[in-house]
Amino acid sequence: MTRDLRICFVGDSLVAGVGDPDGLGWAGRLAARSFADGLPSTRYNLGVRRETSADILGRWEEECARRLRDGTDLRVVFCFGVNDATHEDDRPRVAPEESAANLAAMLGRAAGRGWNTLVVSPPPVADAAHSARTALLDERFALVCRAAGVPYVSVHRALSGNAVWLREVTAGDGAHPGADGYREFAALVAPHWDSWLGTSGGGTDAR
Amino acid sequence: MTRDLRICFVGDSLVAGVGDPDGLGWAGRLAARSFADGLPSTRYNLGVRRETSADILGRWEEECARRLRDGTDLRVVFCFGVNDATHEDDRPRVAPEESAANLAAMLGRAAGRGWNTLVVSPPPVADAAHSARTALLDERFALVCRAAGVPYVSVHRALSGNAVWLREVTAGDGAHPGADGYREFAALVAPHWDSWLGTSGGGTDAR
Repeated sequence: MTRDLRICFVGDSLVAGVGDPDGLGWAGRLAARSFADGLPSTRYNLGVRRETSADILGRWEEECARRLRDGTDLRVVFCFGVNDATHEDDRPRVAPEESAANLAAMLGRAAGRGWNTLVVSPPPVADAAHSARTALLDERFALVCRAAGVPYVSVHRALSGNAVWLREVTAGDGAHPGADGYREFAALVAPHWDSWLGTSGGGTDAR
Repeated sequence: MTRDLRICFVGDSLVAGVGDPDGLGWAGRLAARSFADGLPSTRYNLGVRRETSADILGRWEEECARRLRDGTDLRVVFCFGVNDATHEDDRPRVAPEESAANLAAMLGRAAGRGWNTLVVSPPPVADAAHSARTALLDERFALVCRAAGVPYVSVHRALSGNAVWLREVTAGDGAHPGADGYREFAALVAPHWDSWLGTSGGGTDAR
């Protein structure tokens, strides 16, 4: 039987690819990479602007369940946390321990439904204090994923030192890069993505 | 105030861009066209495989409501009907009069929420009998949109005579084209899209 791969990308505006003139974001670039590598897929982008892990927890499963049918290989990629770490009234919109609990809850539900999962860390933004809080969330998320036996890709540290990312995010609205920044993001995830999907990735660069 | 445009594309697998190795489909190509034309947007693709207008009626509003917030210009593009016209047990999955009623209901709800709407016809598939049924649906949808005062773009007839579209749909799974077919689809919608958004479209081709 032909492999019929369907993948939901669940998260916030970074998942939606806000700011990318090419309309692909990092998620679209990864899907195109695998297509070029001989693995077509149905990609559902479920990134929503401004959403925290608490917002996502309230809607992700229903949205994914409608989309993850009929295929033979059903998967979910999660990426969120930047909005959790946003300060409002001197407090994060979602407390770090709650963010971690929300991620753990989602991974548990996904496992129960038989959906293979991959988690990608939230990236840094232009504001250094905000990014420092996100970095701590990154560490918590890594522990949650290790405990759940789910692959975790941290792009936070690498993008914090990535000149292209920082330049585009700063030149943009402070949170979202342009096409080149999303390309850098996708390139960091690409080897883990290939491994997760069981593809070689040989001969194709992240685009 | 800067225009903050957010657009949900609601429909089936053709909206999702299934089969496009570039990962854009016609919706992604139109958004990229406008970005190049100086109008960035947040694009939410809510196309789901196999869904009929009845399936979409049950979920589109909640999904759009979560996404159409905060912006200053909130819009919805609808495109469905191919799956309504699919025969199962010698009858269409959704009867034509019900398909039309479903579209009318969606347009009414969208108007009530203040969302600007555009409707795109379902395209032809490889099966001629199926496409003939879809063509009748196309006519009904045009009447619904005229009554609602909503712009309607019929791509059905043009794509029925489009060699690129027919070749790719036939070479594919019988329903979905590749990148070139989606490019043809986008090119047919592009002038109406520009007019709907109030952009010139000058100097950019649909890509």
